[in-house]
Amino acid sequence: MIIRELERGRSILARLDFSAEIVESITSLAEKTDIKVGTFSAIGALQQAELGYYEQDSHQYKVMEVDGPVELVSCTGNISIRDGKPFVHPHASLANSDGNLRGGHLHSGTIFAAELYIQELKGEPFIRIHDPITDLYLWS
Amino acid sequence: MIIRELERGRSILARLDFSAEIVESITSLAEKTDIKVGTFSAIGALQQAELGYYEQDSHQYKVMEVDGPVELVSCTGNISIRDGKPFVHPHASLANSDGNLRGGHLHSGTIFAAELYIQELKGEPFIRIHDPITDLYLWS
Amino acid sequence: MIIRELERGRSILARLDFSAEIVESITSLAEKTDIKVGTFSAIGALQQAELGYYEQDSHQYKVMEVDGPVELVSCTGNISIRDGKPFVHPHASLANSDGNLRGGHLHSGTIFAAELYIQELKGEPFIRIHDPITDLYLWS
Repeated sequence: MIIRELERGRSILARLDFSAEIVESITSLAEKTDIKVGTFSAIGALQQAELGYYEQDSHQYKVMEVDGPVELVSCTGNISIRDGKPFVHPHASLANSDGNLRGGHLHSGTIFAAELYIQELKGEPFIRIHDPITDLYLWS
Repeated sequence: MIIRELERGRSILARLDFSAEIVESITSLAEKTDIKVGTFSAIGALQQAELGYYEQDSHQYKVMEVDGPVELVSCTGNISIRDGKPFVHPHASLANSDGNLRGGHLHSGTIFAAELYIQELKGEPFIRIHDPITDLYLWS
Repeated sequence: MIIRELERGRSILARLDFSAEIVESITSLAEKTDIKVGTFSAIGALQQAELGYYEQDSHQYKVMEVDGPVELVSCTGNISIRDGKPFVHPHASLANSDGNLRGGHLHSGTIFAAELYIQELKGEPFIRIHDPITDLYLWS
């Protein structure tokens, strides 16, 4: 277990733009406001999305399209550094018109409406580097 | 994108009352403690609930009943100002006895048990006003 | 409603260990760092898990196995005191390879990868004691 205590930085709320791509929007916000580490949570609705599932045996990401309008029921994740830049890692659950949910890694999503809370953390940031066991880029 | 930096206010934990309505309980807590802006997260169990799905084409809310006891797997959202008063915007996912999930906008729910964390934010609050594109009351 | 205002303590990020049990890992982290009260959020992936559903009529926990690799789409919860020790209360939603979700009380789970954020809260901690109405150990 790698444990790191950080200082609290800025607390930011944001309304993201209609028809923008949500992962790019959060990344752009982190870049603009110079957030290197933090956590976030968002709710809202998406026009469509792509979810990722990591195949733990083959070490491949499976990307699945979620067609049609969905509620963004939860979207939580973190910001850390990868390749010298802020990297957004979001997971999300999405509800269709019957309330049925699908979820996973949020690969991308077109915003209908999105309200975002970011808590910046300051101090020595976690850097993502390749992990030989999982083949993922994990905190070190 | 509208970005606003706020100051951290109070951090509050609460145990909500058995058989109370959860959205009213969070709203009442915000009013009693004079929280104008903030974020929250809750877990617990509900006796029954109503979920909302916003139809992005027709601009109507579809409300769906979730009968019977469910785990409150996630409930995240925010508090901001609408019509001059604290307005609670909650999304939730609910699990039935087989662990299957439904979710959406949490319209209402009867509490079996609920543990709530609110992080107050201070500063210029977001005000919800009618947005002509989505027909929703969004932050401005 | 029992409302308690607490002071913010430490903000901690952690990368949990491959193949460790997630609830024990969070509990162990709380014990090591002497966190008595707090909230947390985690995302990642699990090799397998057990979810709990509380039967509100019979007051029994039903435990369900979730076989095979899943995305840890959300995992939110809190830390408080039970029997004089830090007690972790986690709820989680898990996605399979089709993006379908199951969720509930996170009884246990074998970590593939997990990124955890804990916000410590300081002050008079909530103590879990037996509640005669629900038969659960709730905050008092």
